[in-house]
This record gives sequence, structure tokens and C-alpha cells, in this order.
Amino acid sequence: MRLATLLGPELKELLRDDPDQVRELLEEIHEQDLADLIGELEPEEQAKLLARLPAYEAAPIFERLEDHEQEELVDIMPPESVVQIASEMSPDERADLFSILPDAQAEELLDKLELVDPEAAEDVREIEKWPETSAGHLMTTDYVHVSENVSVGAAIAAVRVFGAEKSTPIYNVYAMATENNVRGVASLRDLILAQPEQQLEEILTQNIISVPPDMDQEEVARRMAKYDLNVMPVIDDTGAMLGVITIDDIVDVLTQEQTEDVQKLGAVEPLDVPYFQTSFVSFIRKRGTWLVLLFLGEFFTQTAMRYYDPVFEAIKGATYYVPLLISAGGNSGSQSSTLVIRGMAVGEIKARDWWRILVRELAMGTVLGTGLGVIGFGRVLMYRDQHVPFALTVALTLVGIVICGSTVGAMLPILLKRLGLDPATSSTPFIASLVDVLGIIIFVHVAMIVMATVIAGHGIP
Amino acid sequence: MRLATLLGPELKELLRDDPDQVRELLEEIHEQDLADLIGELEPEEQAKLLARLPAYEAAPIFERLEDHEQEELVDIMPPESVVQIASEMSPDERADLFSILPDAQAEELLDKLELVDPEAAEDVREIEKWPETSAGHLMTTDYVHVSENVSVGAAIAAVRVFGAEKSTPIYNVYAMATENNVRGVASLRDLILAQPEQQLEEILTQNIISVPPDMDQEEVARRMAKYDLNVMPVIDDTGAMLGVITIDDIVDVLTQEQTEDVQKLGAVEPLDVPYFQTSFVSFIRKRGTWLVLLFLGEFFTQTAMRYYDPVFEAIKGATYYVPLLISAGGNSGSQSSTLVIRGMAVGEIKARDWWRILVRELAMGTVLGTGLGVIGFGRVLMYRDQHVPFALTVALTLVGIVICGSTVGAMLPILLKRLGLDPATSSTPFIASLVDVLGIIIFVHVAMIVMATVIAGHGIP
Repeated sequence: MRLATLLGPELKELLRDDPDQVRELLEEIHEQDLADLIGELEPEEQAKLLARLPAYEAAPIFERLEDHEQEELVDIMPPESVVQIASEMSPDERADLFSILPDAQAEELLDKLELVDPEAAEDVREIEKWPETSAGHLMTTDYVHVSENVSVGAAIAAVRVFGAEKSTPIYNVYAMATENNVRGVASLRDLILAQPEQQLEEILTQNIISVPPDMDQEEVARRMAKYDLNVMPVIDDTGAMLGVITIDDIVDVLTQEQTEDVQKLGAVEPLDVPYFQTSFVSFIRKRGTWLVLLFLGEFFTQTAMRYYDPVFEAIKGATYYVPLLISAGGNSGSQSSTLVIRGMAVGEIKARDWWRILVRELAMGTVLGTGLGVIGFGRVLMYRDQHVPFALTVALTLVGIVICGSTVGAMLPILLKRLGLDPATSSTPFIASLVDVLGIIIFVHVAMIVMATVIAGHGIP
Repeated sequence: MRLATLLGPELKELLRDDPDQVRELLEEIHEQDLADLIGELEPEEQAKLLARLPAYEAAPIFERLEDHEQEELVDIMPPESVVQIASEMSPDERADLFSILPDAQAEELLDKLELVDPEAAEDVREIEKWPETSAGHLMTTDYVHVSENVSVGAAIAAVRVFGAEKSTPIYNVYAMATENNVRGVASLRDLILAQPEQQLEEILTQNIISVPPDMDQEEVARRMAKYDLNVMPVIDDTGAMLGVITIDDIVDVLTQEQTEDVQKLGAVEPLDVPYFQTSFVSFIRKRGTWLVLLFLGEFFTQTAMRYYDPVFEAIKGATYYVPLLISAGGNSGSQSSTLVIRGMAVGEIKARDWWRILVRELAMGTVLGTGLGVIGFGRVLMYRDQHVPFALTVALTLVGIVICGSTVGAMLPILLKRLGLDPATSSTPFIASLVDVLGIIIFVHVAMIVMATVIAGHGIP
């Protein structure tokens, strides 16, 4: 019987009752699917199951489990088994495991790993040295390298040795001038196309595109995307090669960074885990903080309106237009801030472009504001009790508010970037709150100019 | 002299004055960097330069130019040269070129290509058959395939033949049972690790993860990310292999889809080109449409307030609280809509989860709303002219509005998805506008209940 023909729930049952079957399953389905299935079992069952496998078979499943599943498993499995599995994991996944564990627990396990597999422990320390979102933290220290003076045949032999030992995919062989200094790179394709007796040197690509270990992962992603690379070497400022970053990690980085950006734009502190796995308390904290800050900021709208009470008293019904008018500013601001934030995230817009953007947004705000102003003018006059001066006030206010929204929305992310903060922090609601208060001030001042006589006489338009 | 040591502007000068230098440069810098440099020249200069190169050298540069640059070049270059270059491009880039050209021009060029390179023309038609954002449109028809019954050595020989002819990267060899039916796959790594005299069959991975040609590119990206694949075969429902999708295209898809999502969230119709390349008119259209729609929708706030005029008349200063109160609804709505939209985009949230989300958001809205309510209650009472009944009205309104915002924000994207629309259309400003009107209605009704006596007597609290 092909086990893979069973349905999910049946498979789960099978794994629970007879964990030995997992070895048979491994030959039929992808490790990722098996990890997904195992992820649905209780932690104790997962631990029992992984314990039945030799570490080199357990490792590829373990490293595909979700972070929180790994964390739970480490808590209930004997440390010796964890260390055995960690020793068989790929260096970047292994480093990830250690970085999600609480510091004390990680340190303790690392000491145990040191005894079993000193090289693996050293790799963890090398990778963990670099900041969480840097190239150094993303890299794996597993890659094939040979001396630059060998033949193509010898390079192929090195691939065989490496491949027999480790299950990581191999795409390139790096040719080293000294122990650490890389001279060039040859892909497996290059090796196969060459003659075994040729010198490796002859087929090397010498112009290596690399990243420094402290480069931010978003920048690494941009660079790999630009050059269509699957593997990017990490080289420090002394020219020493520290490891390689593979594209599958970059795909994860792009998705994760994007999720964070979108959540920030929506005024939510980025979640670390998916929606359904985020605890209620953590949600309240991550949403509540921004909600309260925005609420306190928005209180200025009330303060402003109260301050201008005589004006609003004078123009009957004027307050009823406030939400309409200020929302136009918030909307145009959210448009321009989104465009600028995204443009900066993908590298199309640099902070030094602020002047060109300001000019464009001023022009755009004027045109868009005038458009809304014309519509607003007509709409106000549709009420028989409203007159031209008030309609004109609404129209001119819209022009002013949309210009203000567009430029504030575009400039704030750039300002944040200059201050070294994340531009995405200027979320749509944040821009809206800021522009709301400005909008009220614009409205009142336009009204005072256009309707001076009305306001002076406390008459009703 | 190493040309690459020149600075950008000098290089541009050089390319402009002596286009023959480009061949020398090609050996020193990456084709992408050369394409970037060439992209800065005038279209006429670009055309002159590409004309100096044989088509097989011009193609990799041409395919790395921006879409709009390619379009301009096709307009000014002789169709014969374009066709020669197209014939040397990789099949997916070639198909992309034809899909950005106006239909008539594309058809004419395709007929010319047919005469020069019938196979290339056929590839274009095969790829263009599929919708713009589908797996079929993303794939390349270039991949190495051999009969399943050959030896490893023969498979390696096939890689050599393919590699000598085309410059595309090669990662896998597909073993075919019949002309079209794939039996299994072996990576170059597998081939190198095996013995040449071994049968290919013995080392094949038979459990191939593939996508159908009509699958949406976002789903393809998710699947490749899940299984950490660099190459994904496209297999139709008859089991025939049509081509492969490579990870570099997926990285581009992810970035592009994310840009579109973010722009929609900010209520901008997705731009097709970067900020600075988007024309003023196109901006006005892409921003203006939403701005006007939202403005018209927001007019209901004015209508609602006007309708409830007697209530607002009765409670002096109540209108001054409207922007504050309704913005709290917009903010909580933008939080929950962002979370749900992003959750659906990455596949964590399915439309069928709506019930669980509704329950969570109701609970979350209650807690967050109560929090804001307490703050609001205290803040109102800080004014000496405000009394407890009005403070209570503000507090209870906040609870109601935040619950309303959270649930509407979370449910609307799911509803849009069910209707077959893009959930990201329920942008932050859209949710805010919707919740604004609801907020006013909630405020008035809470006030009518809590302050019944005040309103009835038209007194001032």
C-alpha cells in the first residue's frame, strides 16, 4: 500500500499509532508535507515520533516545523536528542533554532552541542554574532570550496565528497586563493560543461557579486533579485568568505518583511507569528498601543474645534462638514505615504529624492484637490439652504486639505527614514490623524477669510 | 586598463562615443550592471550600441532593460534586428517582450520571428496562451529533458548539449516516460554524485511537486517557497510537462504582487511602473478615481449629521467629538482589515475561517473599545463644563465604534474574497469611510439613550 494515498487524518492516525511508519512515508512524500502532518500532532506525540528516527532523518523534518513547534519540542525532548538533531541540521536552520530559544536554554544546549559536534557549535556562534536581520544571520556556512589551482575534475570530486556528507543543495563551487579569500566561482553547470582535465581557473567567474555580513536582509534580497542569483556569498571587509545565502531564505525574508510593512501601515505592531497563533493578550498589546496613541493624537481635533467655537457657532451646519473635509486629507495622505513607503522599500525612491517628490505631490495635490473642490462646491449648493460663500469655503478648503495631505503623507516617511526610523511607521491612520487637525485649522481659516462678513455678524449663510 | 574601474558617467561617455567597447566591458561587469548603464543612454544611442553586438550578445542585455526601455527600442530599431535579438532571448523574457508590445505590433513581429526562428515563435504563442498572472505565462520552455531509460552519463551529455546552446542556468534534468510525460527529476548535484554508468532511473526523485499552467502566480510563489524549490515544473491536467518556472521570476512576482497589495491598501490603483516613471496624468487617474469615490461616500457623514441635527443641537459641543470618535473606528478597522488581508495573501487565513475571526474580532473590539472608552471618559470630565452623562455617552460610543470597526474591517476583505474580488480593495481609507458613517449613527443613538432627558429638554449638559 502506498501510504501517501491515505488522507490527512488517516495519516495522522497512523503516525500516532505506529511512528515507525514515518520512515516509509519519508520515501513517498516531501519532507515539508510530512512536517506539516507531524505539526498537527500533540507535542508529546511529535517527540515520540522524532525519537524513533535516527538524527539525520529527524533533522530535515524538525527544521521544517514552525518556530513555536520547535520551541515546544526542545522543552519536552531530552537535551541529548535535541543536540543530536541540531548537529544534523543545516547551519542556518540550526542557528535559527538557537536564536528562537530563551538565552539561558540556548547557551546550555550550545555547550552540550560543543561536546558532540564542536564545528556545528562554532557555526552557530559565527552566525549568531550578526544582527537578527543581517546577511550574516541569514547565511549558511555550508558551501563547497576548493583551491583555485585544482582541475575541474578535482572540483567535481570535491562536490562528491561534500554531497555525500551533507544533504544541502549545491549550486556552486567557490575557488579560494587562500583559506578564506575567494577568487572566483563556478556553477555545477560550468563544471559539467568543462573538460575534467581543464584547470578550474579557466572557467571561473571572477567578478563575484557578494554582500557584507552586516548588510540588512532587505538590501540582500534586492541585490539577489537584481542579479537573478540563487546563491550569494557573504564576504567581510577583509575579503574573507563567511558563508552563502540561498534564495529560499530570501523568499522567506521578502514575505516576512512585507508582512511587517503591511502591518505597520495598518498601525499594528508587527506580529511575530500568524494571526491564529497570536495570543489574545499579545494582540491587545500590539493593536492597543497604536490605537491609544492615535486616539490621544486625535483628541486635538476636538481641542481645535472647541478653540474655534465662535467660528463654528457663526456658520450653522459647518461642523457637519468637518468629517467629510478632513477625511479627504487623510485619504490623499494615505495615498502618497503608501506610494513613498513602498517606493523606498523596493529601492525606487531614495531619501535624497525628497525635493522632486515634494514638487510632484504639490502639483498632484493641487489638481486632485481642485477636482474634489469642484464636486464639493456643486454638492453643497444642492442644499437649498446653503449659499455660494459657504460652498466656496468648502471648495477652497478641499484644495488646501488635499495639498496638505499629499505633501505631509509623502514627506513624513522620508523624514522618518532620515531620522533612522522605519518609514512604514508613518501608517495610514497616523497620517490621517495628523492631517485631521491640520484640516480643521485650514477649514476655519478659509472660512474666516471667505465668510468674514457672515462670521463678524454671527449671521447664518 | 580595466574599464570597470571607470565611474558611471565616464562609462556612459565611453559607451556613447565608442560602442565597440561594450564587448570588452561585458567581460568585466555583470550584464545587469551594463544594462543599467545602457538604460541611462538615449534610446537612439541604446539602439546604435545594441546594433554593434551580435544578437546572442545583445539579447542578455536587452532582456535586462526595463519594460518601457524595451518598448522604446522596439519602436526605433529595425524589425529585423529586434527579431534576431528576440530569437536569442530566453523564452520567458521573450514572451514578456511580446506581451508588453501593442497587439498589432506584437503580431507583426511574431510573424517575422516565425520565419527566422519558428521554434521561438511557437514558444511565445504557447506562453502567451495563458493569462498574464498565471504559471503558464511565467514559465520558460527551456529545460533539459531526456528519456527515463538512459544512463546518468547520457543525462550529463544532454546537459552539455543544452548548455553549449543556451545560456540559461541549469539545475535539473527531467526524465520523460513519453515525449511529454515526466517520470522524475534529477538535480545536477544528483548527477554528479552518481556514477556515469548508473541508470538515471535509480537516482530520480519521482515524487515531483508541480503546478498546473492556470494556477495564479501568487499561489505558485507560495508553493515554491513552501518546498524551498528553485525550479518548479508546469504540468497540465493531461500530465504533459509544458515548461519550468524559475525562482528568480518568483522573487519578482512576490515584489510586484506586494507592491500592488500595498498600493491598493493605500487606496491607489496599482501603478505599472515605478513612482518616478508614472506620468502625472496616470497618477491623477489612479489616485483620483479612489479619492472621488471615497469623497462621495464620505458625504454620507454630512448627510447623517444633518439628519440628526436636533440631537446635535441639543448637546452643545457634541459635534466637536465626532472626528475623534469616528477615527477610532477607522483605526481599529484598518488594523483588522490589514491583518486579515495580509493573512489571506500569505495563505494563513482562508475565507472559511470567517467565523473564528468574527468571534476574535468581537472580543478584541470589546477590550480595545473599553480601553479607549475609559480614557475618553476621563478626558471628557477634565473639561469643567462637561458632565458625567456626556462622558458616559462618549465612552459607550467608543466601545460600540471600535467593535464595529474591528468586525467590519475583518469581515469586508473576506466578503470581497468570497465575491471573487481582491480583498486588498477594502483599503484602509475605504474601511474608514464606511465606519465613519456607522460611527455617527452609533454616537447619536447612544446619546439618545444615555442623555434622553437632556435631548428631550433641549437643555445643555
